[in-house]
Amino acid sequence: MFQKILIANRGEIALRIHRACQEMGIRTVAVHSTADATAMHVRLADESVCIGPPAARDSYLNVAAILSAATITGAEAIHPGYGFLSENARFAEMVEAHGLAFIGPTSAHIRMMGDKIAAKAAMRSLGVPLVPGSDGALNTLEEARAIAAEIKYPVLIKAAAGGGGRGMKVALDESEIEEAWRVARTESKAAFGDDSVYLEKYLDRPRHIELQVMADTHGNVVHFGERDCSLQRRHQKLLEEAGSPALNATERDALGATVTAGLRKLGYRGAGTLEFLYQDEQFAFIEMNTRLQVEHPVTEMICGIDLVKEQIRVAAGLPLGYGQGDIRFTGHAIECRITAEDPETFAPSPGKVTQYHAPGGLGVRVDSALYAGYTVPPHYDSLVAKLIVHAPNRAEAIGRLRRALSEMVVAGIKTTLPLHQRIVEDPEFQAGDYTIHWLERFVARVPEL
Amino acid sequence: MFQKILIANRGEIALRIHRACQEMGIRTVAVHSTADATAMHVRLADESVCIGPPAARDSYLNVAAILSAATITGAEAIHPGYGFLSENARFAEMVEAHGLAFIGPTSAHIRMMGDKIAAKAAMRSLGVPLVPGSDGALNTLEEARAIAAEIKYPVLIKAAAGGGGRGMKVALDESEIEEAWRVARTESKAAFGDDSVYLEKYLDRPRHIELQVMADTHGNVVHFGERDCSLQRRHQKLLEEAGSPALNATERDALGATVTAGLRKLGYRGAGTLEFLYQDEQFAFIEMNTRLQVEHPVTEMICGIDLVKEQIRVAAGLPLGYGQGDIRFTGHAIECRITAEDPETFAPSPGKVTQYHAPGGLGVRVDSALYAGYTVPPHYDSLVAKLIVHAPNRAEAIGRLRRALSEMVVAGIKTTLPLHQRIVEDPEFQAGDYTIHWLERFVARVPEL
Repeated sequence: MFQKILIANRGEIALRIHRACQEMGIRTVAVHSTADATAMHVRLADESVCIGPPAARDSYLNVAAILSAATITGAEAIHPGYGFLSENARFAEMVEAHGLAFIGPTSAHIRMMGDKIAAKAAMRSLGVPLVPGSDGALNTLEEARAIAAEIKYPVLIKAAAGGGGRGMKVALDESEIEEAWRVARTESKAAFGDDSVYLEKYLDRPRHIELQVMADTHGNVVHFGERDCSLQRRHQKLLEEAGSPALNATERDALGATVTAGLRKLGYRGAGTLEFLYQDEQFAFIEMNTRLQVEHPVTEMICGIDLVKEQIRVAAGLPLGYGQGDIRFTGHAIECRITAEDPETFAPSPGKVTQYHAPGGLGVRVDSALYAGYTVPPHYDSLVAKLIVHAPNRAEAIGRLRRALSEMVVAGIKTTLPLHQRIVEDPEFQAGDYTIHWLERFVARVPEL
Repeated sequence: MFQKILIANRGEIALRIHRACQEMGIRTVAVHSTADATAMHVRLADESVCIGPPAARDSYLNVAAILSAATITGAEAIHPGYGFLSENARFAEMVEAHGLAFIGPTSAHIRMMGDKIAAKAAMRSLGVPLVPGSDGALNTLEEARAIAAEIKYPVLIKAAAGGGGRGMKVALDESEIEEAWRVARTESKAAFGDDSVYLEKYLDRPRHIELQVMADTHGNVVHFGERDCSLQRRHQKLLEEAGSPALNATERDALGATVTAGLRKLGYRGAGTLEFLYQDEQFAFIEMNTRLQVEHPVTEMICGIDLVKEQIRVAAGLPLGYGQGDIRFTGHAIECRITAEDPETFAPSPGKVTQYHAPGGLGVRVDSALYAGYTVPPHYDSLVAKLIVHAPNRAEAIGRLRRALSEMVVAGIKTTLPLHQRIVEDPEFQAGDYTIHWLERFVARVPEL
């Protein structure tokens, strides 16, 4: 096992990784910008190295400074966290070229999944479901009809040469297919000089569901179930749940079996997340994140597993030591991302935290690098705390979340706490009845916080 | 279900009960002395009533004031917490005479278990193990030899009329029995004018192990496994674990089956804890606490159950809704009691808390009514926080505990945090190798904190 790990990140995730290391008896090296000299991740680490000025490109993205810090301190491995260099294949290569372990997948897999077209092609070849539709361009309207009947309406007829929404028509049912076919081809011809079109299932109310996977270097791949991350605003997740209120165990197991078999074939290593759109009991792969996710704690709560420790063990060459059958899902977990933002306008709200009080008690977890007197710098992502609750079922988790939110105090800066307090009271949220469009509408109809 | 509950307690346990109520949608009434007007349990409750001056006898033990507060606020039930009025049978009777529900056992059972002789007699009749020994006075030395051989040495020969250690002799093995028999009888005759003696197993290195039970009013009784509370100083528990490092599942199940069958026969209701000494794979009943225990969180962590919610449901007449077979024990939990005391002298250290920072992250729970700026009053028990960790196994729980202890900040008053930091590093503690005498010796040999 490693004796010392450098954590190439900041904020709550740097602290999260430090905690796992400390519990494993591994010493930690924090790196930090000049803006983060008094940050919690620096205060708690065994050693720390300043790697540059505030701007991320000069510090947390400064590969040379980070590699130097690792060399100087004698770290044997680098954990990149999420964001920053975590999905930079070149960085992973350089880390390994320096004789250090990169706590993550191989650079080849990072690169493959970073290229969204290559990732989809790989997933298709591995049998992972994508958005259903025609296999390439359509030749006739009858062909379009047949496929639409098979994959069910609504469908989208899209210009093969298209982009920007042009040459794209929705057919809500069979009566609209001929018109959609005609208009899409006409528009496509006019816009791109090419009337070839293809057909795809139109997802008007999908959920965002993702699957957490973990693979060792001995051919073992498991999944830790799904997370529902549909509550998003401008593609930023705000609240995540495990499991999804919309999924049952059979669907989870079937998807998990396909995905783990595929990743085994691929020779994948480490933690990863496959993101899907989910609608009408069908999954459509979007992308794969080859790193730890912000929302990983909800999975940890229902599986009783420490994903960061697992990442470290796998990077050290250890086998998982358990199989899919050993993984049990217990209860329900919800995470709220508390950001230093105005809860109405979402304008960043950096500044000094004058009071900080974390909620406690049964089933409540807080992952945060905040402390009273800390100044949230304006240079980075606005996530300042993750409040996670766990309970035997979703209804009880919601009751616990409401309770925990009411205890939490972050004074001196604006945060999204009031928004979360509103979400948790909403009947649709309580019923689990939401799609990826729900939060934008909720924010629009609940302006006064 | 109740709409409103009065919490007849203060500090972390009042907050603990409030949290359960809030999560269940039940409104809470806090009561407080004048010294506790700004306490957390008062600040968070839906309503609060001042019940008297600081001295507990005038406030938290002031039955008339508490019953008035319940009547005035329209509370339907009273939760007594632990300590104060929680094991006062007369209080339980008066609560029920006022038409309110007492969240606890019947007054008859509180009274029975409060009388230690009656409690032991009841447990003997129910087949619960007591300290093994002769059934009453011994007639001959041969009889003593026979029983000692059966229950195994060391044994104690004790004056039937005795007390204060007089007329009490240990026989470590068979060679000492004749001498012990002779001396005990002679001393007994001299001291009490009566030479009748009896024989009991001598427990020189017992552990304190207790079993958590829960019974509804429909005849269902379950146990939630054991806690090891051997780490005590002057009969005050300092650190508790679930499960016990010394017990296996077979022993737990056998004891649990005996106890739950006994309590079913007794018609017991609510939460309760049976305390045992445990040595050489044998249990000896000491006493039963007819209330929630301070250390109940470790049980909650390994069982995934909320004991306070269960107490409330049972008091409302609901059936448990699960059987013994549904209760699973997952991982290991440890609780540290953080008291406002000098960690060397154990002198109370009340005063203003200038900084408070609770540890966070995976598997860490803090039950505390502390906040930055709060003044710990000198009038009550010195317990100010309970730090509870949960992990898949004991070794990982210890690693997590070490990590969490290192993050916790309570400034302005002295606390026992440094003592816990020492305990967690001790190889004997880490090996789980301790008895009820261990902590006193540990404190003596580690004076400089």
